[in-house]
Amino acid sequence: MLKQLKEQVLEANLALPRHNLVTFTWGNVSAVDRQQGLMVIKPSGVEYQHMGLEDMVVVELETGRVVEGSKKPSSDTDTHRVLYLNFAEVGGIVHTHSRHATIWAQAGLDIPAWGTTHADYFYGAIPCTRKMTEQEITDRYEWQTGEVIVETFIERQLKPDAIPAVLVHSHGPFAWGKDAETAVHNAVVLEEIAYMGIFSRQLTPNLETMQQVLLDKHYLRKHGKTAYYGQ
Amino acid sequence: MLKQLKEQVLEANLALPRHNLVTFTWGNVSAVDRQQGLMVIKPSGVEYQHMGLEDMVVVELETGRVVEGSKKPSSDTDTHRVLYLNFAEVGGIVHTHSRHATIWAQAGLDIPAWGTTHADYFYGAIPCTRKMTEQEITDRYEWQTGEVIVETFIERQLKPDAIPAVLVHSHGPFAWGKDAETAVHNAVVLEEIAYMGIFSRQLTPNLETMQQVLLDKHYLRKHGKTAYYGQ
Amino acid sequence: MLKQLKEQVLEANLALPRHNLVTFTWGNVSAVDRQQGLMVIKPSGVEYQHMGLEDMVVVELETGRVVEGSKKPSSDTDTHRVLYLNFAEVGGIVHTHSRHATIWAQAGLDIPAWGTTHADYFYGAIPCTRKMTEQEITDRYEWQTGEVIVETFIERQLKPDAIPAVLVHSHGPFAWGKDAETAVHNAVVLEEIAYMGIFSRQLTPNLETMQQVLLDKHYLRKHGKTAYYGQ
Amino acid sequence: MLKQLKEQVLEANLALPRHNLVTFTWGNVSAVDRQQGLMVIKPSGVEYQHMGLEDMVVVELETGRVVEGSKKPSSDTDTHRVLYLNFAEVGGIVHTHSRHATIWAQAGLDIPAWGTTHADYFYGAIPCTRKMTEQEITDRYEWQTGEVIVETFIERQLKPDAIPAVLVHSHGPFAWGKDAETAVHNAVVLEEIAYMGIFSRQLTPNLETMQQVLLDKHYLRKHGKTAYYGQ
Repeated sequence: MLKQLKEQVLEANLALPRHNLVTFTWGNVSAVDRQQGLMVIKPSGVEYQHMGLEDMVVVELETGRVVEGSKKPSSDTDTHRVLYLNFAEVGGIVHTHSRHATIWAQAGLDIPAWGTTHADYFYGAIPCTRKMTEQEITDRYEWQTGEVIVETFIERQLKPDAIPAVLVHSHGPFAWGKDAETAVHNAVVLEEIAYMGIFSRQLTPNLETMQQVLLDKHYLRKHGKTAYYGQ
Repeated sequence: MLKQLKEQVLEANLALPRHNLVTFTWGNVSAVDRQQGLMVIKPSGVEYQHMGLEDMVVVELETGRVVEGSKKPSSDTDTHRVLYLNFAEVGGIVHTHSRHATIWAQAGLDIPAWGTTHADYFYGAIPCTRKMTEQEITDRYEWQTGEVIVETFIERQLKPDAIPAVLVHSHGPFAWGKDAETAVHNAVVLEEIAYMGIFSRQLTPNLETMQQVLLDKHYLRKHGKTAYYGQ
Repeated sequence: MLKQLKEQVLEANLALPRHNLVTFTWGNVSAVDRQQGLMVIKPSGVEYQHMGLEDMVVVELETGRVVEGSKKPSSDTDTHRVLYLNFAEVGGIVHTHSRHATIWAQAGLDIPAWGTTHADYFYGAIPCTRKMTEQEITDRYEWQTGEVIVETFIERQLKPDAIPAVLVHSHGPFAWGKDAETAVHNAVVLEEIAYMGIFSRQLTPNLETMQQVLLDKHYLRKHGKTAYYGQ
Repeated sequence: MLKQLKEQVLEANLALPRHNLVTFTWGNVSAVDRQQGLMVIKPSGVEYQHMGLEDMVVVELETGRVVEGSKKPSSDTDTHRVLYLNFAEVGGIVHTHSRHATIWAQAGLDIPAWGTTHADYFYGAIPCTRKMTEQEITDRYEWQTGEVIVETFIERQLKPDAIPAVLVHSHGPFAWGKDAETAVHNAVVLEEIAYMGIFSRQLTPNLETMQQVLLDKHYLRKHGKTAYYGQ
């Protein structure tokens, strides 16, 4: 069942430690099969070096019911579900506590667009959500984490495919993409720009956002109909 | 004698360089056998790559007497003893000079709870002890180092199993857990949150502690009767 | 065609990840054959681990026409062309988004000469260009990126062989040298001094430039007629 | 000739990249044979991976004359000579541009004793020399670099065996020890405390020096007649 998707999700999970995005089991990747309404996700708390195809858990998107797999799915499964249910373009999602993106999340700040590395992948600032309410934290916390992400994108009128990552306040980053591999790719870029942003801001404390025209140029050079980067 | 415990202690010591927690011989792990009143600890000043099972030293908890082993035990042995004698839940202890935890210890500051990475393992700030007195430093220094840690936990009414680490002022971290492996695990997490804390605070200089309700949620999601993280 | 130059360019490109200068495909190296008026450059968006000699693209310097190679050349090809056409001494060029050089570029600041590591390779501050105009960004952007670099060197009366690198504002570094290998070498040094500069300035906020006489001594110890460093 | 000393010097030089203390050829180690009045030092500008026993250069301490070896000795040879001629206890010397020690040197600041990691190896602050004069830089620069180090130790009444390292202003660190291996060991520790110092000071901007009694305790626990650390 969903053998190819499981392989992609396993491979994407194993890519997290290779890219130095995770310590221990602090990360999870999922991918979705929209036609069948199913997602494949990493099991909860299993170490990367012991993870195999058979550990992947298949979850029904609408209900959260485990359809296949003997292990419990990631404790963040409901957050992934909310994102898939609200962001129609998303095929894969990754959550990590990668150091520098988490630093911005802990500081409660958006990562402004400060250079072309950012603009090549993100069409504007990476938003940080508001703090969650007591009600949201105590009742269906993981689901509400997804809801507060969706709220952030709606209120700020952001498009998930143009800004494929978010910082959850006091927590850490989620990133996504058209599939699991692209989600991990975006998580790597996010970590990179999070690192550079900390020290760009140290060098120039009131650093202005980059020029909109340069943001446009770089983002559209790699994305959309007029893209001309790559083969 | 205590073969299994020695294996655990050796393995935990060897895990320190793998996790980039130590330079040269700057670290030591021990574990305790409560029934026999004995602890196993790394020898003093021996390099990790040359360490074997036969180098592990068995020490009587009450007296500090070496019961087995041809080498001198770690110079920090008495600190470990005080912690085992006062913290009944602790099964393993690790001491390192890991970079970022040591930075906080040198700065003489607690590490506040600033995010869910912290909350997943530590139920509140990681305390930094007061400076030791001249008397404590010149007379039974290593024993007094343990005493000042215990004092910190008593005065602040902290539970060692809920806050499994401490920073010794002008020195560095001790971490612990139910066994040697868990102690090392907590030392890795401590180093991670110490790193992130430095730069979260740089981004938002007067950063408030995270919401108590979020701290509760994450800590209790992984610990205690209502835990639901992992398999 | 240009087999030896292709080998040098391939090898120099592969050196980028070894020196931790690139993430994914974010970097490119080229080299020039002045007699034939041709340059060899990395293809656009191809991963380093899959790159072979046959992927190298040969481009006519004057026209930008692809003379050999089935792949599209790097999207930054026109920037390389402008530099070769204006900087007669340059034999190889490298562009990366290496973390610390990019931090300075994002902050929009020159890297001052603050120590002998800098002086051993760069005979003065590494300049950061002005921001590009809207016109420059929307019309022939990559070519104009080269032009703004050249303008920076002319206006400040800098010699490209004495200052073999530049920071493009809000973007990242270009470095060069007599051949592709030397260009990569200079990019590594640039990254090193960019790192050290951030924290030297943190320790001493209004840090003065190093003494001119010391800059002279170190630069001239390794470069020019009176050099005596090396074999 | 001096085969054993050459092996020690070669091994110590090769240890520099393993400890991440050098980029390219930016470092050199020497050792001295006091009886014969000879020192062995790395050749100038040779890459570590191509270095063999036969590349080591034997230099007469008093005259600087090359006694054996087909290569030119390190350009810093005269600095090493001055240190051996003035610091009678020193058996090995290492010079690097290791990142964080160099940051302090560029900032022109001593590294204060801020913790027991420091106190375990250095009995007080690591001094930074004054800037060199124009005369010193233009006339016998490398020799004068040694002289300014010696001056720093005399004026501040420091003992080279108690403070086995120095920062040369606007340049970088020299470290030493009873032999080449110990010198490298001290260079590693210096780099470690240089790193930690930058961020301890960031956390607590006017951080006081550690208590003298704690400095005494840790230094003397590992050095001198009353040492009890190690086997």
